[in-house]
Amino acid sequence: MKKPWGGRFGGQTDKEVEEFTASIAFDRELSAYDIAGSIAHARTLERAGVLTADEADRLERALTEIAGEIKSGSFVFRDDLEDVHMNIETALKERLGDLGGKLHTGRSRNDQVSVDTRLFVKDRAGRAADELKRLRRAIIDRAKQHVGAVMPGYTHLQPAQPVLLSHWLLAYWEMFFRDGARFRAAKSAADVCPLGSGALAGVPYPLDRAYTAGLLGLSGVTANSMDAVSDRDFVLDFLFAASVTMMHLSRLSEELVVFSSVEFGYVNLPDGYATGSSIMPQKKNPDTAELVRGKTGRVYGDLISLLVTMKGLPMTYNRDLQEDKEPLFDAARTVIDSLSITAGMIREIVFNTERMERALSGGFVTATDFADYLVGKGMNFREAHETVGRIVQFLEKEGKGFSDLDQEAFRKFSELFDSDISRTLTVKASVGARSVFGGTAPDRVAEMIERAVSAEETDI
Amino acid sequence: MKKPWGGRFGGQTDKEVEEFTASIAFDRELSAYDIAGSIAHARTLERAGVLTADEADRLERALTEIAGEIKSGSFVFRDDLEDVHMNIETALKERLGDLGGKLHTGRSRNDQVSVDTRLFVKDRAGRAADELKRLRRAIIDRAKQHVGAVMPGYTHLQPAQPVLLSHWLLAYWEMFFRDGARFRAAKSAADVCPLGSGALAGVPYPLDRAYTAGLLGLSGVTANSMDAVSDRDFVLDFLFAASVTMMHLSRLSEELVVFSSVEFGYVNLPDGYATGSSIMPQKKNPDTAELVRGKTGRVYGDLISLLVTMKGLPMTYNRDLQEDKEPLFDAARTVIDSLSITAGMIREIVFNTERMERALSGGFVTATDFADYLVGKGMNFREAHETVGRIVQFLEKEGKGFSDLDQEAFRKFSELFDSDISRTLTVKASVGARSVFGGTAPDRVAEMIERAVSAEETDI
Amino acid sequence: MKKPWGGRFGGQTDKEVEEFTASIAFDRELSAYDIAGSIAHARTLERAGVLTADEADRLERALTEIAGEIKSGSFVFRDDLEDVHMNIETALKERLGDLGGKLHTGRSRNDQVSVDTRLFVKDRAGRAADELKRLRRAIIDRAKQHVGAVMPGYTHLQPAQPVLLSHWLLAYWEMFFRDGARFRAAKSAADVCPLGSGALAGVPYPLDRAYTAGLLGLSGVTANSMDAVSDRDFVLDFLFAASVTMMHLSRLSEELVVFSSVEFGYVNLPDGYATGSSIMPQKKNPDTAELVRGKTGRVYGDLISLLVTMKGLPMTYNRDLQEDKEPLFDAARTVIDSLSITAGMIREIVFNTERMERALSGGFVTATDFADYLVGKGMNFREAHETVGRIVQFLEKEGKGFSDLDQEAFRKFSELFDSDISRTLTVKASVGARSVFGGTAPDRVAEMIERAVSAEETDI
Amino acid sequence: MKKPWGGRFGGQTDKEVEEFTASIAFDRELSAYDIAGSIAHARTLERAGVLTADEADRLERALTEIAGEIKSGSFVFRDDLEDVHMNIETALKERLGDLGGKLHTGRSRNDQVSVDTRLFVKDRAGRAADELKRLRRAIIDRAKQHVGAVMPGYTHLQPAQPVLLSHWLLAYWEMFFRDGARFRAAKSAADVCPLGSGALAGVPYPLDRAYTAGLLGLSGVTANSMDAVSDRDFVLDFLFAASVTMMHLSRLSEELVVFSSVEFGYVNLPDGYATGSSIMPQKKNPDTAELVRGKTGRVYGDLISLLVTMKGLPMTYNRDLQEDKEPLFDAARTVIDSLSITAGMIREIVFNTERMERALSGGFVTATDFADYLVGKGMNFREAHETVGRIVQFLEKEGKGFSDLDQEAFRKFSELFDSDISRTLTVKASVGARSVFGGTAPDRVAEMIERAVSAEETDI
Repeated sequence: MKKPWGGRFGGQTDKEVEEFTASIAFDRELSAYDIAGSIAHARTLERAGVLTADEADRLERALTEIAGEIKSGSFVFRDDLEDVHMNIETALKERLGDLGGKLHTGRSRNDQVSVDTRLFVKDRAGRAADELKRLRRAIIDRAKQHVGAVMPGYTHLQPAQPVLLSHWLLAYWEMFFRDGARFRAAKSAADVCPLGSGALAGVPYPLDRAYTAGLLGLSGVTANSMDAVSDRDFVLDFLFAASVTMMHLSRLSEELVVFSSVEFGYVNLPDGYATGSSIMPQKKNPDTAELVRGKTGRVYGDLISLLVTMKGLPMTYNRDLQEDKEPLFDAARTVIDSLSITAGMIREIVFNTERMERALSGGFVTATDFADYLVGKGMNFREAHETVGRIVQFLEKEGKGFSDLDQEAFRKFSELFDSDISRTLTVKASVGARSVFGGTAPDRVAEMIERAVSAEETDI
Repeated sequence: MKKPWGGRFGGQTDKEVEEFTASIAFDRELSAYDIAGSIAHARTLERAGVLTADEADRLERALTEIAGEIKSGSFVFRDDLEDVHMNIETALKERLGDLGGKLHTGRSRNDQVSVDTRLFVKDRAGRAADELKRLRRAIIDRAKQHVGAVMPGYTHLQPAQPVLLSHWLLAYWEMFFRDGARFRAAKSAADVCPLGSGALAGVPYPLDRAYTAGLLGLSGVTANSMDAVSDRDFVLDFLFAASVTMMHLSRLSEELVVFSSVEFGYVNLPDGYATGSSIMPQKKNPDTAELVRGKTGRVYGDLISLLVTMKGLPMTYNRDLQEDKEPLFDAARTVIDSLSITAGMIREIVFNTERMERALSGGFVTATDFADYLVGKGMNFREAHETVGRIVQFLEKEGKGFSDLDQEAFRKFSELFDSDISRTLTVKASVGARSVFGGTAPDRVAEMIERAVSAEETDI
Repeated sequence: MKKPWGGRFGGQTDKEVEEFTASIAFDRELSAYDIAGSIAHARTLERAGVLTADEADRLERALTEIAGEIKSGSFVFRDDLEDVHMNIETALKERLGDLGGKLHTGRSRNDQVSVDTRLFVKDRAGRAADELKRLRRAIIDRAKQHVGAVMPGYTHLQPAQPVLLSHWLLAYWEMFFRDGARFRAAKSAADVCPLGSGALAGVPYPLDRAYTAGLLGLSGVTANSMDAVSDRDFVLDFLFAASVTMMHLSRLSEELVVFSSVEFGYVNLPDGYATGSSIMPQKKNPDTAELVRGKTGRVYGDLISLLVTMKGLPMTYNRDLQEDKEPLFDAARTVIDSLSITAGMIREIVFNTERMERALSGGFVTATDFADYLVGKGMNFREAHETVGRIVQFLEKEGKGFSDLDQEAFRKFSELFDSDISRTLTVKASVGARSVFGGTAPDRVAEMIERAVSAEETDI
Repeated sequence: MKKPWGGRFGGQTDKEVEEFTASIAFDRELSAYDIAGSIAHARTLERAGVLTADEADRLERALTEIAGEIKSGSFVFRDDLEDVHMNIETALKERLGDLGGKLHTGRSRNDQVSVDTRLFVKDRAGRAADELKRLRRAIIDRAKQHVGAVMPGYTHLQPAQPVLLSHWLLAYWEMFFRDGARFRAAKSAADVCPLGSGALAGVPYPLDRAYTAGLLGLSGVTANSMDAVSDRDFVLDFLFAASVTMMHLSRLSEELVVFSSVEFGYVNLPDGYATGSSIMPQKKNPDTAELVRGKTGRVYGDLISLLVTMKGLPMTYNRDLQEDKEPLFDAARTVIDSLSITAGMIREIVFNTERMERALSGGFVTATDFADYLVGKGMNFREAHETVGRIVQFLEKEGKGFSDLDQEAFRKFSELFDSDISRTLTVKASVGARSVFGGTAPDRVAEMIERAVSAEETDI
């Protein structure tokens, strides 16, 4: 294949080198954006008087045709044409002859690949935000459905205090709501048009860059050509947003794995999201949740990959930058799929609220309330804490829980225990008492559900 | 040391475990924030009727006193008191007796350490933004000073096209301007008060959380107690902002190292920022730039460290979270110092503009312009590109540059070369032609300097 | 402070730069190795005729004296002396005058810091290997103690098949045994002497490098001076060994956290390794295990930090390399402490073998054996698998386990179920049947314990 | 598609979940190993009396047939069959009916996928070692070819001392020689057979595991079934070996990029390994070297990816482990290709030895020798260092080098400069003086080339 830059070269590109440096195996994912960018560039060249209206029309038609063929799968990408740009360019020349080459006027690969990648990031950040929204809505629906259900809240995976199941769900709503903001930041970082930057110094044609941006639906134009062709911050922003989202998903997945264990038994995963074992007939494995958790590593890897690639690169464009694409594509696919899968799982999961409630009755999860009770009766907190600690130690040894003791038994530990304890020291009272803003009291949680609903409505 | 939670425990904490789990060696960095949080909490307890005004006054006075001692260095931190909270709490009790203990009402370590860390992040994100601003101003000053100076612009570390030195400088201005936004995002993520979340479920006291937030200068309150005590997104946001900033600094550092090599000779580092060799008397090493570049690794490490720690953690608080602090402290110190050092370097660096200009005259950096010239005369771009490629190949073999050829010689390659070439095909003409928005033409760059100046003025 | 390389410099080092580039805050950890290296170098200079025997004696005495002062804490490190080398050199000159300076003959900072770091890595890799051995011995002891105890073996955190507790313990023995090999590889990579490499090109003195190596107990000498001063592979080898070890520890810690949950209840952490809550009197938190798990992130961060720092560095020494030390020190401390803490925890942990056994009786963990039973009676495996799957589904709906069905009930699912099922389909029979090499049958496990014991004896 | 574990399941696997959890898109790369493992397992079942000789023969024939079809590309992988194992199993059953299913006896997916991955790692570690050898031989050849050529040796990218070009080349030989050892360690970690471990507890069949291992050419068998199915250390060992190798390649690439800059001009990249620009006709870009450097990030990302995935996983098999394959495949491909490409580049690169030599004559790279000269004449080293520093400062101001001064001029700085300076203070003398073992003196370097040659001969 004759290279478009062969003039000063004597030798041929080594065959192995050609394969090593080619990106067509993966960058075809940019086709649609590459063509959109080319159409916008053609129109801008027309506006600048470089192309006639007719030439621009013919270019747009041919490019649209190629886009259609790619979409339908009839377009044949050639490996020897290195990358997506060359493939499309070559097809264009085959159809339009010299006119195809004119599209190269006032544009270089450096600004072209940048605009393609920006359009890709903008699209995928939007999709990720949409998937987040869908997941959050599933969370809200389940929170609404289970208003009133209680469960043990954990710290250190030890029962700590009773909370509402809806409160637990809404904690994840908060995380995924924050994630939305990170994807919006990535989207807005990408939302700037670099066309017109040329190879690095700007182009010697009076291109109306704002016009190009407008045609592509981009909100602005880059302000420094050297920065424009070497900047990949917007990709990093996306990879970071994806990483934190995966981290949140990994936490939820971990809880689903633990909660669906036989020993916890708090949730049943829908059959469609679990798998069995070809060996062990009893198994119902939370594969989907595990795989989401496991994929966290890959997205972190994508992030660190590009951070490393960018480290210490002099300006402006260096071929190292070609390595931005695969981590980006991989992270985009992974985070979008993981969100979608998790939303499905949340929608269909069965919460064993009885089992959760039973877990509360047996143990010591209201111990804080017992201490607070004693404080209410006048004991200082440290002493109250110690007194309840001794009761717990005693009961543990006996293999019993709070509910196994009557008032008399409690009074052996402190005379401040009164007849009101059976009424006051309930799980219901415990959650009800935490009615501070952000607390787990039913009224608060109901309020927070409303707040989440209306946040979703105003969230674009 | 008697633990505040000894009630149910029979055995003693293992001595080695105590050291292993202690954080006082590093978390003392949070002292000032811990005390600010405690004062705000005391005032909120007063407002809730849990403390009297007099009690709150005494607490504030004692806390302020302790803060003063810490600042002056007279406060003695005890290793056996595990962490900064216990150290301050113990000192408070020594001074105020039981009243000191009352401060624990309606607060747990989990929300306490969160507010401390948030205040820290908010402060350091602000400082980093300030340092970025200082660095950007240094860049603007140097760009103003060197308006008109030209240098080779590079792609692939090969001379590509002539650019203005100021244009090169402003490319970095763009990067560091974007970094400011990332720190602002981290700051705003941190700017929310978690106090009132208790251990995980909210507290059973009618705390006015907005009041607490107001006292601490925080803009809002967290909305879900379980999320509040397990959320470290704001730390990750900071670490990511720091990582991208270090990446940008590493690129600038790399260019300073390369440009200060004997072979390039484009910049002289100020003596104050270079070091010599105890062995080799001729050496002037760009140590400072190298160290900034090298420290990129450490900040990336800090980011990945916390991402890994958070991965797969069930809610809510787990002791793993203690590991958020050292990477945060380390990254904050590193990025702030690196920015400050680099700003100093930029302010004092000497640009060898003559050498840069000479580099332009000898080589082929205007080759694109020769091709554009031929296009202007009617040749199509591909042929023009090839023609100039052949000229370059010829001259390289001869060890010559464009300026060594006269019109006749050029005409051997194409008859389109005319008498106007000596006037048209200059470095000055080359940069001047790139007057598109974002391009390197002097007028544009001057405009961009103004734009940067006014961006700095409106940037808070 | 007058620099030892001031000759060609006009200006002073910037004060902030001095602090930024100084390493004395952390590299003092290398003192003992620096002094050992200096003594060996002095003796080598003596052998080369550069120093007299008397001079070498005096240098050794003074250096030994300084080492003693550092060890006892009476030596005062000065921050203005940048690094550990300058501190010791300056002290030496104060004591010996010009003779102190002679030690610099035939040595540069570049080979000096390399030998210091190599000695450090060699020592810490040895210590880590020792701690691994201690942990493995604790594992063997517990495996011996609990021979015969059964527990559910998990895949996907779902009960899969019964295994011996000792088998579970020995799985970790395998991991930590492999880790030993990685630290030995790091140790042997470090075990080579770079002294004599000078700044980068070798020294112009006839130094007997093998002699130096011998004095330092190093097994060989480096073979290329340029590589020697820029190589940090041995540090990376250590960081990788530490990372994989932490990964293994994080898996064990995760299991300890899960197994010590109220819901599993398989282990009780010793009081000395757990903590309580200052709020919740019932809590007994597995803080130590969580912290070990959490520290995995930091060691991964240390590894990636140095990998990033090294990426793309031209030869030979660059100041970036100073950034090798803090990740190394941090990882060494972390992995050694984490191993030691975990060994203590394993030694004292209480295994609730009754609870584990009870967990086996209730569920379906022998389902594979039921299927194998049917296969033994002639059914093909797929059908057997499905049959048992249906039994499980039926029992789950009823809230029952295998032991709740009698022979008649089983025969409703397949007539192949015979009177021998109560004898054959026991947990004991299940583990006993897996007597293949590496399987969980008691005899095999006993054999493997012996194998581990003798591996420890031959393991150096 | 009917699942092989459907018995206890009511619902169908969600379509999206099926795609999300499928691995056939990438794990087909394991086909050959999967089939080899199956044949060895069939033979072991025969030996255990589970299969007849005829059955084993038929299985082997059918599997070999399938392997052939896969190799030739005629085998059709079905996406709905999830993974490579199911695809091959299904094809086997289509050909052999029930007999195909019998192969599942005494084997689970967990030990099956482990043996496949181990065979893959063993093969690729071997290939990487071969490529390393090829690269090292290219280095030796060039070192031999250029014996005697000198170049500036750099520290901090500043000329430091003259070295031989061959010495510079051999520094990389050392790095790539160490890399060989890391791949051998990975290979030997992988070289153990896990078949017989079953799902996690071992299999209830008397399999001769050593026999299986022997058939597969594996050197041993795993000793603990639980560890065997959850261990991925050997993959991490490979990823680490690949990461350090890429780090070394990134350093070499960086030097090639810098050395092929117009300003340095020390090397000409062969045309086959460089590319031009479609815009700038003069460009000859070191794309190949840049891409190798850039790919370092991706391999680091692969390493961190799996480290993260493994962190905190409870035993034994969890679906997260499926995520080990893509980073492994990617790193294997990347490191093998990068080594091969670099070897080609090293073989064909042109070293501009004249330009390197000229670079030595002009500057101050022998300054250390001037100082050593003065020391030889009796001056102490510090004073000599300062004196030469002053000479350098003077000459720099004048824009001159050492060679521009005559003896008289030198004597103005010190009367110790004698008539022998023109003879003594040459580049040749400088390199010749560094004849210590590992130094750059020609004799030493020649010796080291021989040493490298014979190391290659004995290196397997």
